[in-house]
Amino acid sequence: MTERRRALPTAEELRIWRDFIEATEVLRAELAARLHSESSLSPGDYAVLLALSEADGHRLRPSGLAACIGWQRSRLSHQVGRMERRGLLRREGFAADSRGAEVVFTDAGAEAFRRASLPHLRDVRELFVRPLGPDELAAAERIATALRKGLTAGVDA
Amino acid sequence: MTERRRALPTAEELRIWRDFIEATEVLRAELAARLHSESSLSPGDYAVLLALSEADGHRLRPSGLAACIGWQRSRLSHQVGRMERRGLLRREGFAADSRGAEVVFTDAGAEAFRRASLPHLRDVRELFVRPLGPDELAAAERIATALRKGLTAGVDA
Repeated sequence: MTERRRALPTAEELRIWRDFIEATEVLRAELAARLHSESSLSPGDYAVLLALSEADGHRLRPSGLAACIGWQRSRLSHQVGRMERRGLLRREGFAADSRGAEVVFTDAGAEAFRRASLPHLRDVRELFVRPLGPDELAAAERIATALRKGLTAGVDA
Repeated sequence: MTERRRALPTAEELRIWRDFIEATEVLRAELAARLHSESSLSPGDYAVLLALSEADGHRLRPSGLAACIGWQRSRLSHQVGRMERRGLLRREGFAADSRGAEVVFTDAGAEAFRRASLPHLRDVRELFVRPLGPDELAAAERIATALRKGLTAGVDA
């Protein structure tokens, strides 16, 4: 079927795909390894602490936190539970169950975030911003926008 | 210290970084979910089967397989062990221990790969190739090359 053949990538497109997804995976793994050795935080921990650090009053409901980070609620809920047990976060609020309670830093969480940030941001610059340079950085932004559009477009038209 | 300040990304660079890494993560998760629902293979399973499908005689030593996929040996060895237990791979060879033995498909592995490939390649086209278009696809290739160069450059000069 012609329609079927047209829906497949060419060998060249596939080569670029593999190259791209592998390079971003190696980048992600290297940044995660550095973050962990510099601060013993995981990328997930860091993302949660970052979202709280940027929130009004440094507090967010779980739904707002999930939206900030772009995670599904169930994944976020496990992550917050783990961080609570490690003393990085606590929940505050008047809800009878904990579901409506707001998530806030503990002092230890704030300190861990503060300690992690400077080396992590330097790593991001060293491994992403600097190698790309201004032109490819602008291209990276266009690519992110295009991918997001593709992901929300749903079915192949 | 001036040197210290210069080593940090700007707010705009950071925004692009987050946008980019989040979009590639959502893409990866969506492709993994589709692959799994279409074939019950993980992206790791698929990568191993793909490397074998492209190897001479459809067989590789673990070291060659690790190099193909860009994984460390320990990660690959766990992956191969799991796939062996699920009947997708077997090891063949004359080595006294299994370390030098070559990894090959079983019939079930070959069939799983064959079944998974067409839908997976269509997904790659729908979610990566088509949204990017030729210009951003070329940019994705330059970005992959630049990231790889940054990752192998070692310390921040």
